[in-house]
Amino acid sequence: MSVAFIGLGAMGGPMAGHVYQAGLLKAVANRTLPKAQAFANAHDGVVAVASLADLPAAVDVVISCVTADADVLALARDLAALKRPGLVLIDHSTIASKSAQQAANILRAEGADFLDAPVSGGVEGARNGKLSIMVGGQPETLARVQPILQCYAARMTHMGDVGAGQNTKAVNQVLVAGIAQAVCEGMALGEALGLDPTRLLPTLGAGAAQNWFMEKRGPTMLQNQFSSGFKLALLHKDLLIVQALAEAAGTDHSIVDKCLADYGQLMQSGHGDDEISSLIRLKRKPGSR
Amino acid sequence: MSVAFIGLGAMGGPMAGHVYQAGLLKAVANRTLPKAQAFANAHDGVVAVASLADLPAAVDVVISCVTADADVLALARDLAALKRPGLVLIDHSTIASKSAQQAANILRAEGADFLDAPVSGGVEGARNGKLSIMVGGQPETLARVQPILQCYAARMTHMGDVGAGQNTKAVNQVLVAGIAQAVCEGMALGEALGLDPTRLLPTLGAGAAQNWFMEKRGPTMLQNQFSSGFKLALLHKDLLIVQALAEAAGTDHSIVDKCLADYGQLMQSGHGDDEISSLIRLKRKPGSR
Repeated sequence: MSVAFIGLGAMGGPMAGHVYQAGLLKAVANRTLPKAQAFANAHDGVVAVASLADLPAAVDVVISCVTADADVLALARDLAALKRPGLVLIDHSTIASKSAQQAANILRAEGADFLDAPVSGGVEGARNGKLSIMVGGQPETLARVQPILQCYAARMTHMGDVGAGQNTKAVNQVLVAGIAQAVCEGMALGEALGLDPTRLLPTLGAGAAQNWFMEKRGPTMLQNQFSSGFKLALLHKDLLIVQALAEAAGTDHSIVDKCLADYGQLMQSGHGDDEISSLIRLKRKPGSR
Repeated sequence: MSVAFIGLGAMGGPMAGHVYQAGLLKAVANRTLPKAQAFANAHDGVVAVASLADLPAAVDVVISCVTADADVLALARDLAALKRPGLVLIDHSTIASKSAQQAANILRAEGADFLDAPVSGGVEGARNGKLSIMVGGQPETLARVQPILQCYAARMTHMGDVGAGQNTKAVNQVLVAGIAQAVCEGMALGEALGLDPTRLLPTLGAGAAQNWFMEKRGPTMLQNQFSSGFKLALLHKDLLIVQALAEAAGTDHSIVDKCLADYGQLMQSGHGDDEISSLIRLKRKPGSR
């Protein structure tokens, strides 16, 4: 298999690096071309492409890690236009399950195929190759590309037809956002009570409050460091998808609504590029830090 | 050391068992005496006492695992009345840090001492002897009783003076309650989307949504089983303490407020003895299950 990787951001960059290590990466592309060119310069045998029309003929698997539904649909159309039957697009972006189904329809009309394969595990999961990959699509297609996904998977789970991966990611984001609420509210209280973080965090982590987010972001949020991790504007974007999905499903989405309001407020005050643990700003006593 | 254990509930019962295994348990007491008598009958060399006046003379450490602030204060007064200098009361209950300080004052006036030592790790942590113990009090006193706490500790952390253990537990309960909100809201959505729990739970657990609560209570909540774990009326009681503490500290307590409202509603509809994961009832589409 020969792979092209599209979207070399905080997640995509290290993921593409793992595919390169496995000897499978042939081409990269990025919204801002210089980033793709820099990657190609640093990785022997990888070309940066400005347009999908320039995709090397050998490429039979395209992986995308981009931002919005429109990006993925445009990519599906461009790839369909290449008319390469057998081509597979694996999309790691977080988009609506309906958009994933549309992308699959566009590609399948030309004999290509699509897997929605959103990931979770943060930037450290991408760097260490330890992501949880939630896949929707044909099991045969997944079986074919499994050696590629293996390059950065802690776990790979086939959740059902196209869209089931995105539905799973929506549930994941409810948890991610809600756990951030819990941890930030708790950390702000612990800080105000003068509890020593080097004792508080491992103590909480050894009991029923244990969670990934506190382990990874607790120490940095208590030091007011919000530069590395998951940008809150991106979680806000994801939660709009989740809110619509829950509304349609008829389930309660009050925690999602609360997170949307809080992250919207942080975006308005210029913190959109902060890590999601920046929510602690709204939890602290006003004017305390 | 010789130990008396007071309060043989879902947590205290198995914890007392571990102290017995270590050969340190001499007496037990319980609000309903027959429970203490049954425990004593099943454990050689342990007596059930109806009143603290009957406490064996050899007992120098009393451990309590009861419900309310008033229970702990009454116990402190009864023990102080025994006038046994050197006696230590270790309290594992969740109460206000101010009540813990009152109990310490009462006991210290008679040459005895007090440690607030709330625990986290659930009924499984109590059973397996893997609790996180958050201790407030004199380091020398903690050092003395450490071999006893070791019987059921995964981790034991000295957090500061008397009350610091309870302050830590308050932070812990913010996380426990908020994570339950996140997980229950996510699980209700996953259920409505028809996602297979046997794939959903391990997938979420392998990424950034990983948390203790989902691992332990996810499978049971999706089967509508709420009989084992942490009774929601007890979490409601704890959160009233947390709410007052956060209010005094000036930090935001909106997730705590939301949890209090939701658990209050469940108590009113007769679910107070349910496990806290019973919150999923309020997250599901009305009438769906």
